[in-house]
Amino acid sequence: MQPKTCWLCHLFAFYFSILMGQSDHSGRFRKGCGCIWSHINIDFARILLLWFAIVFYALFGAAVFSALERPSELEAHCKWNRQLAEFVQDHRVSSEDLRELLGHYEEAIAAGIRMEARRPRWDFSGAFYFVATVASTIGFGMAAPATLNGKIFLIFYGLIGCAATILFFNLFLERMITLITFLARRCRKQKSKRHIVPNLNTQPEHGDEQEDWKPSVYYVTLILATVAIVVNCGASGLYSAMEDWSYLESMYFCFVAFSTMGFGDMVSGQKAHYEARWVYQIANSLMIILGVSCTYSLFSVTAIIIKQMLNWILAKLFSLHCC
Amino acid sequence: MQPKTCWLCHLFAFYFSILMGQSDHSGRFRKGCGCIWSHINIDFARILLLWFAIVFYALFGAAVFSALERPSELEAHCKWNRQLAEFVQDHRVSSEDLRELLGHYEEAIAAGIRMEARRPRWDFSGAFYFVATVASTIGFGMAAPATLNGKIFLIFYGLIGCAATILFFNLFLERMITLITFLARRCRKQKSKRHIVPNLNTQPEHGDEQEDWKPSVYYVTLILATVAIVVNCGASGLYSAMEDWSYLESMYFCFVAFSTMGFGDMVSGQKAHYEARWVYQIANSLMIILGVSCTYSLFSVTAIIIKQMLNWILAKLFSLHCC
Ligand SMILES: [K+]
Ligand SMILES: [K+]
Repeated sequence: MQPKTCWLCHLFAFYFSILMGQSDHSGRFRKGCGCIWSHINIDFARILLLWFAIVFYALFGAAVFSALERPSELEAHCKWNRQLAEFVQDHRVSSEDLRELLGHYEEAIAAGIRMEARRPRWDFSGAFYFVATVASTIGFGMAAPATLNGKIFLIFYGLIGCAATILFFNLFLERMITLITFLARRCRKQKSKRHIVPNLNTQPEHGDEQEDWKPSVYYVTLILATVAIVVNCGASGLYSAMEDWSYLESMYFCFVAFSTMGFGDMVSGQKAHYEARWVYQIANSLMIILGVSCTYSLFSVTAIIIKQMLNWILAKLFSLHCC
Repeated sequence: MQPKTCWLCHLFAFYFSILMGQSDHSGRFRKGCGCIWSHINIDFARILLLWFAIVFYALFGAAVFSALERPSELEAHCKWNRQLAEFVQDHRVSSEDLRELLGHYEEAIAAGIRMEARRPRWDFSGAFYFVATVASTIGFGMAAPATLNGKIFLIFYGLIGCAATILFFNLFLERMITLITFLARRCRKQKSKRHIVPNLNTQPEHGDEQEDWKPSVYYVTLILATVAIVVNCGASGLYSAMEDWSYLESMYFCFVAFSTMGFGDMVSGQKAHYEARWVYQIANSLMIILGVSCTYSLFSVTAIIIKQMLNWILAKLFSLHCC
């Protein structure tokens, strides 16, 4: 039974031990007090607290976005109604016929047609770009299967593709942490060596202690954030040069793409013609893969910090009510 | 230094121990042979193998999607060109003016305007839906910030929102595995009890052995897949009743939404009027949260199975070249 059970304890090791390792406090308030609070499952309390935090955060976000975007939406409606009315007046077209044409154009837009010429969506390279947005779960939506067969195939195709990509991101994170730990240890070793000469009081550390030392989660987050920002800035430079976007817009696009939101309001590589088309397409793919990997890593370590904060809040709450 | 180092060993515990636990083989072929292959880092080989597998899988997918979708794309182009030409001919409108109007309509569509009336995008409930698609990284794109302030706010808002949601999904997965393990143990206990009566040869298992037993990764994947399919079917029933979608289309929508691809070609809850609007909106939100959580869990365990397969392939490859 040994090889079969391994995977589970190791998967658990990740989740459980993060909690247990950090929450000496959670252990403390479980044993210490006999009030009603101690009977509540601590894991359940954590997920509930996180849930409330997310809902509150979403309400706050909704209020801000509504305040920021609502005027621009109303303006867009007014502008379009004016443009439509002007066109009907100037060209004496029946309003119904025009609305019918616009309805057709809506369908055409969904099929990838635009007034400015665009690259084909379903030639091989277009389909490859689509498949990449499926596996990475970015899903820009510049292309989406229109046929029923395509939709059915997507479900089965996406299942394995997404799982494989999640594994890739996890392996990437693991490699990144190994690299950061290795570099941080080297820095530390060199620093301690330099310190020995001027300051004779400091004793040289044991080799074992050096090998066991690991950087804190904050340190790793800081480094990953720096890497993510550098990649974002580099990619923004590329996109602002190749597409008709400002640098700030490119940064917004990069964040949306790399975090795998992929709204699809801006999509790279959609114009019909580029200088050095193939070079740009390859650079675009590599940038997206690198960006998504880095941002995923950053999110994962940030999640650990949020968990630590939740543990701290829970510990405070429980100790207030019990002791 | 103890509390600071904990998080890292535990994060590592997840990644490393899954490898080490399962790959007695990888340990074996590291020590056993002295050829060039043994010097290659096994972790690097794994990520490289996965990388090639993903690229190959993407090429295969691109070929299939291209074959399935290309005819429909060409047909859509022909249809639209015909409709446009007919309109110009029938109404004697200057082609340039019409193209200008259609260009304006393109912008209007990006701002959420459609011929059929739609719900406002940036009132509070619309903004809340948008924020939910940000935090879950679904990013349907039915709404996307149009103002520069909105775009800048999104970057900072999304960072914490996405990290918190990733943590939520991880905690959900942990709870699910705990539940499945608990239920599987109970089933096993009851089965073994029943077996004692008819078959006297079977010895009752020790209590400790019962407590240590854990279901295999395949078992958990099977259960999670069943749960995900049930949730998908239930949600599809809801959507096919409330939106103008067939049941199969609803299943496609559910898969695209729950896997957090969110192409945005179909988005739930966008019509201006629904029966029982508020009930539907809440049901919609709950379905998406449940669906995304289940699908994320399914992807995570499937990723572990893929990793096991990679380990197996690597073990075969190394033993072929070295022994
Ligand atoms: K998307
Ligand atoms: K997405």
